[in-house]
Amino acid sequence: MGVIDLSHVLSERTPLFPIYDPVRVADKFALDTDGFYVRSWAFDEHSGTHVDAPAHFASGVATVDQIPAGELVLPVVVVDVRERVAADHDATVEPDDVLAWERTHGPLPERCALFVLTGWGERAGDAGAYLNADGAGVMHAPGFSADVCAFLAAERPGVRAIGLDTASLDIGASEDFAAHGAWLPTGRYGIENLANLEQVPPLGATVVVGVTRFESGSGGPARILALT
Amino acid sequence: MGVIDLSHVLSERTPLFPIYDPVRVADKFALDTDGFYVRSWAFDEHSGTHVDAPAHFASGVATVDQIPAGELVLPVVVVDVRERVAADHDATVEPDDVLAWERTHGPLPERCALFVLTGWGERAGDAGAYLNADGAGVMHAPGFSADVCAFLAAERPGVRAIGLDTASLDIGASEDFAAHGAWLPTGRYGIENLANLEQVPPLGATVVVGVTRFESGSGGPARILALT
Repeated sequence: MGVIDLSHVLSERTPLFPIYDPVRVADKFALDTDGFYVRSWAFDEHSGTHVDAPAHFASGVATVDQIPAGELVLPVVVVDVRERVAADHDATVEPDDVLAWERTHGPLPERCALFVLTGWGERAGDAGAYLNADGAGVMHAPGFSADVCAFLAAERPGVRAIGLDTASLDIGASEDFAAHGAWLPTGRYGIENLANLEQVPPLGATVVVGVTRFESGSGGPARILALT
Repeated sequence: MGVIDLSHVLSERTPLFPIYDPVRVADKFALDTDGFYVRSWAFDEHSGTHVDAPAHFASGVATVDQIPAGELVLPVVVVDVRERVAADHDATVEPDDVLAWERTHGPLPERCALFVLTGWGERAGDAGAYLNADGAGVMHAPGFSADVCAFLAAERPGVRAIGLDTASLDIGASEDFAAHGAWLPTGRYGIENLANLEQVPPLGATVVVGVTRFESGSGGPARILALT
């Protein structure tokens, strides 16, 4: 069995959606003085490769610790929109992208996670290029449309999670976070800042979403592994 | 496929080995005022269900972000020492426990994680009972002996990780952390504060160790799932 690491390293240099504070880390114990090595961390729940729990955008739905363990292990499909994104940094994933995937690979698995490969993960080492703000401060990065989120929730209800390799489920230029609003309140979760999606086959892998089990959390950093 | 959650919820009330600071959490954004819900966390790397990376106790070995992804997905065996622990809160896991397991179940898998079920996990909701300090402040909880760590590293080198359902690889009363010192510098990792080990069969499950990928970390909180 192969294991593909879909999580970026978390550090003080991790690019963040700009409403969040930088990740902080401090030394706590050191090998030469204490005999063992430990550090301390502080960060907002939506730092690095992380889960958006349903409760991030609605009340009465699961916080991150309440997502059933069985929903953290799912067959995963990858929809590749890199070609379109290369020509349009504001490109949205639409229902047609899912239908095109199905024409090639067949129906989606009965239960699955649906990840979108935009190619944006290659920029993750450079926060400026990753967030890609223009002179007016408007970010330009691809994302899910509200339409595809509503389509998946209604027409493909076995899709229990969506994820992508950018800093937000919505496009960077979004002002209303309509994709978040169409998806998370349905009780399903999202994943942002995925790494190495280009290594995952379109169909056939299983994803394990190792999200930190923060009590009543809106989300949290996650170690995400694809098993092939 | 069944999924067993081996991680406790992480909160301000999570019992910690007493050299660490309490977990802190603060509100950041709220649904009613901001339209979405987010909190912020601060904690030491060894909080809650977590990984001890090799670099916790030695230089020149892997920090938590450097543990190969392939070592985070392993067949897992569970050694049950509950009966002995019930009679002796300072009980240590010894090479004989591994040999007894092998007499019943056969040789250990070629590569695996070895988890010990002490029964201590039932106390995790009560920090006083979990750490179990006596009047002099000496903690009494079971753990690995240095001997079994040295035995596994030398005689069963396919064991890539060890873990248990207490706050420390070493017994609570340890002053020299000899089990940590015998295991982690070999380049292998440990897991502390596991939950629900009594649900995992002695042989046949696979564990996925979803540890937060802290840059140069000595360890970190982990979502640990057993697949059966």
